[in-house]
Amino acid sequence: MTNAFTTSGLFGGLLCDPAIAQEFDAPAFTARMLAFEAAWTQALGTCGVVPADDAETALTAIKAFSNHTLGQGSDRDGLPVPDLVAALKSDLSSSAARAVHTGATSQDVIDTAMVLTCLAVMDRLTDRLHRVIAALESVLARFGDAPLTARTRMQAALPATIALRVAAWRRPLADHLARAVDVRAQLAFVQIGGPIGTREMPQIHVAECAGRVAATLGLSLGPVWHTDRSRIIALGHWLALVAGSLGKIGQDVALMAQQGVDEISLSGGGVSSAMAHKQNPIGAEMMVALARYVAGQQGILGQAMIHEQERSGAAWALEWLTLPAMAEATGATLNHAESLIASIERIGIPD
Amino acid sequence: MTNAFTTSGLFGGLLCDPAIAQEFDAPAFTARMLAFEAAWTQALGTCGVVPADDAETALTAIKAFSNHTLGQGSDRDGLPVPDLVAALKSDLSSSAARAVHTGATSQDVIDTAMVLTCLAVMDRLTDRLHRVIAALESVLARFGDAPLTARTRMQAALPATIALRVAAWRRPLADHLARAVDVRAQLAFVQIGGPIGTREMPQIHVAECAGRVAATLGLSLGPVWHTDRSRIIALGHWLALVAGSLGKIGQDVALMAQQGVDEISLSGGGVSSAMAHKQNPIGAEMMVALARYVAGQQGILGQAMIHEQERSGAAWALEWLTLPAMAEATGATLNHAESLIASIERIGIPD
Amino acid sequence: MTNAFTTSGLFGGLLCDPAIAQEFDAPAFTARMLAFEAAWTQALGTCGVVPADDAETALTAIKAFSNHTLGQGSDRDGLPVPDLVAALKSDLSSSAARAVHTGATSQDVIDTAMVLTCLAVMDRLTDRLHRVIAALESVLARFGDAPLTARTRMQAALPATIALRVAAWRRPLADHLARAVDVRAQLAFVQIGGPIGTREMPQIHVAECAGRVAATLGLSLGPVWHTDRSRIIALGHWLALVAGSLGKIGQDVALMAQQGVDEISLSGGGVSSAMAHKQNPIGAEMMVALARYVAGQQGILGQAMIHEQERSGAAWALEWLTLPAMAEATGATLNHAESLIASIERIGIPD
Amino acid sequence: MTNAFTTSGLFGGLLCDPAIAQEFDAPAFTARMLAFEAAWTQALGTCGVVPADDAETALTAIKAFSNHTLGQGSDRDGLPVPDLVAALKSDLSSSAARAVHTGATSQDVIDTAMVLTCLAVMDRLTDRLHRVIAALESVLARFGDAPLTARTRMQAALPATIALRVAAWRRPLADHLARAVDVRAQLAFVQIGGPIGTREMPQIHVAECAGRVAATLGLSLGPVWHTDRSRIIALGHWLALVAGSLGKIGQDVALMAQQGVDEISLSGGGVSSAMAHKQNPIGAEMMVALARYVAGQQGILGQAMIHEQERSGAAWALEWLTLPAMAEATGATLNHAESLIASIERIGIPD
Repeated sequence: MTNAFTTSGLFGGLLCDPAIAQEFDAPAFTARMLAFEAAWTQALGTCGVVPADDAETALTAIKAFSNHTLGQGSDRDGLPVPDLVAALKSDLSSSAARAVHTGATSQDVIDTAMVLTCLAVMDRLTDRLHRVIAALESVLARFGDAPLTARTRMQAALPATIALRVAAWRRPLADHLARAVDVRAQLAFVQIGGPIGTREMPQIHVAECAGRVAATLGLSLGPVWHTDRSRIIALGHWLALVAGSLGKIGQDVALMAQQGVDEISLSGGGVSSAMAHKQNPIGAEMMVALARYVAGQQGILGQAMIHEQERSGAAWALEWLTLPAMAEATGATLNHAESLIASIERIGIPD
Repeated sequence: MTNAFTTSGLFGGLLCDPAIAQEFDAPAFTARMLAFEAAWTQALGTCGVVPADDAETALTAIKAFSNHTLGQGSDRDGLPVPDLVAALKSDLSSSAARAVHTGATSQDVIDTAMVLTCLAVMDRLTDRLHRVIAALESVLARFGDAPLTARTRMQAALPATIALRVAAWRRPLADHLARAVDVRAQLAFVQIGGPIGTREMPQIHVAECAGRVAATLGLSLGPVWHTDRSRIIALGHWLALVAGSLGKIGQDVALMAQQGVDEISLSGGGVSSAMAHKQNPIGAEMMVALARYVAGQQGILGQAMIHEQERSGAAWALEWLTLPAMAEATGATLNHAESLIASIERIGIPD
Repeated sequence: MTNAFTTSGLFGGLLCDPAIAQEFDAPAFTARMLAFEAAWTQALGTCGVVPADDAETALTAIKAFSNHTLGQGSDRDGLPVPDLVAALKSDLSSSAARAVHTGATSQDVIDTAMVLTCLAVMDRLTDRLHRVIAALESVLARFGDAPLTARTRMQAALPATIALRVAAWRRPLADHLARAVDVRAQLAFVQIGGPIGTREMPQIHVAECAGRVAATLGLSLGPVWHTDRSRIIALGHWLALVAGSLGKIGQDVALMAQQGVDEISLSGGGVSSAMAHKQNPIGAEMMVALARYVAGQQGILGQAMIHEQERSGAAWALEWLTLPAMAEATGATLNHAESLIASIERIGIPD
Repeated sequence: MTNAFTTSGLFGGLLCDPAIAQEFDAPAFTARMLAFEAAWTQALGTCGVVPADDAETALTAIKAFSNHTLGQGSDRDGLPVPDLVAALKSDLSSSAARAVHTGATSQDVIDTAMVLTCLAVMDRLTDRLHRVIAALESVLARFGDAPLTARTRMQAALPATIALRVAAWRRPLADHLARAVDVRAQLAFVQIGGPIGTREMPQIHVAECAGRVAATLGLSLGPVWHTDRSRIIALGHWLALVAGSLGKIGQDVALMAQQGVDEISLSGGGVSSAMAHKQNPIGAEMMVALARYVAGQQGILGQAMIHEQERSGAAWALEWLTLPAMAEATGATLNHAESLIASIERIGIPD
């Protein structure tokens, strides 16, 4: 959800995306934090930092954990991890408790769980991007030769065909799929640094443990990145590109749908409470608004690069305030794009 | 709420404000849309546009309306008003139905309901601002004479007292209360323009109706403002000023709490999952993050000034995407300020 | 100027405003810094902080100062004031030198000179705003009754007249003139706080001196505001409102000038290097771009509210990076508005 | 240069970068526009679109062109290309004139010249990035083992060494060098589309011509990208990452330089006009301000993705307003980083 108003239900799915929102919600995110803790406990056991049976006992407790109402402690601690760890240890012997979280820190848990969340979100978004591209290809196949007056600087320029404009809609989306591969490659790393990012923990072969955790989670092990937020900002950049290219489509469709221009007809379309005859290209307008929103958020997310010392609570929170909303807004605009393009009944200058 | 992650509960109240979110949520907003429709129906009756008993019947139906699950139609219409109006009319005779919404348009309903929402939000925020100011005054009274080394450009400058810094925290907040009066005065107008903003509706003495609606709702009647979003942007500006002044306090407290500086001690404070000895000034950090967030949103909200022709769906939606989140973030930072200041146990250089 | 590209001359006056730029340039700003130092020296003499003849001698030196190539020291000091003060004292006896800058600090000089600059800039901008309003009134007088199809959500709505749209262009501009009075009232204060903002300087009756400086400069004397940047952000807000309302006009004109819509004809207009027949509404497009630019800058300027401790070099510099460019961009868009409106040959639906 | 105030000279090189500004200034940019026109004329000749000797004559005229005072026409045309083309043709026979610009359009010239400019700017910035990395490596070599108290959430955490923090400063910069290779690969394409982007020009084998132009200019030939601004936004993203990583260094240094913390001493440093004893870490503060500025601009530049129809004058101008200033600000912060790091005399906790 993006905020209380746009997700109140009063505006349906216009400005929100429950499927993407769900990926950032407590159950999904807690499951990913637990996946980290489980992988960590396993690694502590395998690397011999704790006795195998303690790791086994701890692992069972972690897998059994089902409390999704964490967070009371966050007002005090700034995040839910201390509460989570305490809850995981609560029924364990002191020896088995040592097999939980030992040598890790809250940021390792949150950042790694966030990486898993971002990758899941990208899966959903790239799936939709594939569908939008396919929809555009069918428009090209059906209407590519239809006549269109090309317009530059809002003025009629020269005769052309729909293929010129729709191919220009499709091309960047395909590029964004290629860019997604690179963004994923930048993102798919565990964050494991321990309390201050040194990866030095008494009696722990951290490199070995960290490597096993990465393997368990299907991520790579690179250098510590707790204070380098480039990969998070890079995801925001990708979201802004995707939303931006769809915003261009929305703007073009809204312009094509104008009376006097009449270059497109859409099925459905909005009703006016005062003017029954009107058909409003609602989806196209929302695509423009969401693109401007996501683009603007990137200017705030980028402030998170100024991440002071070994951990900045303020800069980190700025990521939490912006990135999930950007992902959801991009998801919403992909939804609009898919149905808008599917609703095209005619495109091009009418005979 | 600001997004699915910050409002998941995992982060407690760090980055959200349920009380402000509630003002933007469906029940509260629907109630305000109904208040508009009721006032409008009443005016239609009093001005003799519809028979008095039709108005009476319609008014009863409006007051009895209790469906808070509107919004299915928004994906088609871009907003919930057509559905709402249809629902209100559904059980009325065609004659009584004429007493509902006739001559008004969706934007009149949404903008006027938004004005009522913004005023209610400002009430809550200014109440908190008063409390924060009072808390600072008590800090001044208790610790004003404590020694402090004034710091300029992050460097020790000259000896001073706590009064210098805390008075500089308090002063702008008092100014923002004065500014709130002006912002309220700019905001407290009905938006009544009809379909295209002409206020010309056949057989309706609009000026007279509109004046009665304004009176009923406790608002003023000024010129149509459907395409001039200055007053909405002005509220965003006020929110950015309030959040910004609190962000300065948060930044100062975080700097004062540093080891080696030790100019403040706070009760409570965050626990580290890895370092039991640490006390993190979580609230201070969140105040910085929220201030940067609100300030940045204003750069996006301002884009809504480019509101094309007689109604821009895209520019309007940009307001919905930003303003409620700005209000909630400002509310959250006021909450942090109140408890942070209350938690001051010592401020100034220790003896 | 806004940047090296837009002010290279290659783009003429499209994206810059030499008249506004000049107000921020070295000669004009140095003159205002000298005005502060002169007023300060005078006050020191009148208040008996320094002997009258020392003040006289110092004053003569300040008035004779003509070096406009300051700034070499700024890389070291962060601003030109230490160099300026040293230069002013260089030829003075140690006793007369005491009559220069004693008790003041660099921020007092820069902030007060910036206030004088902002007021001069507002004078220029409000003059242009008056002319733009007059131009719109003449359009109303000439074409107000011309038919226009009102458009909402980019769709034809109902028949109307040009008066509906042009009055909606004019109304907010008149409001912004009223807002300008309030912004000026907020801005027109000296900043005098001394090294750390205490206004406590040994053997100086600061309140009295400061009062005289304010009177000399035609400003008011209020509390110290060195760390409260609200009034600077408020000016940015006003610039964003002005540019935004003009951006709406530009967007409307660009839409009205489309082939198929044909609701306006403009004299002049751009030529295409490839399509001789085209007439591009360049000014209208620039008004949209400049409005988006100014609105976005406000999201950055607002970050300057987080002004830590008794002086933040970083937050302060953020004002210098944004506010002058916002003022110049607003000036440029006022210029475009004036000539665009003057170039209207026909507006409304052609017979 | 970023604006009239920061480039007035009064602030030295604090907030500007003449070397980067020069790349965007009229002489350099005109030279790159001429390089495009020369390559185009050559291609027209080689591809047999125009007689070889006409191409030869035209080429001589282009190479002889020396008027750097173009731009008067931009107020009318929106860009200097029509003037440039007219000037180039002015002394040519009508037949030789056909060998100039025929089949190309203004956007082809501006976008391709901008690509050449961006690549030259990246060369300068990556050179500086190499030097900054080398400077950090020497700090690591000299002081890596010095003790440092790691700080998380602005609080002392655990004992560490300078290597922890400085390696965290260095690591992302090396990554940004790797990212630069990818950004260059995205950027280094000619934009050749003709009037509306179809690459269809009567009697011209455009693909062949375009290929030759690309080869002459050392660029690649890909699909038309006139309406897809992703690669421009991607450069802005890279600038924001570079400036952001340096802003983190600046923030850390400013925090380390605080009295009471004393983790660094710098040679030089700023002087106060009021407090002779102070040494202000000016460069560090400017790095923070410039990072916030560049990050924020990206939120505006991203709006340019909404590039309507076949050419948007408004969206295009938004790139011109932001990208050059972002490049210059990033250049300025690289300059600050180099001298700041070189000025480190001691880093780490003093014995």
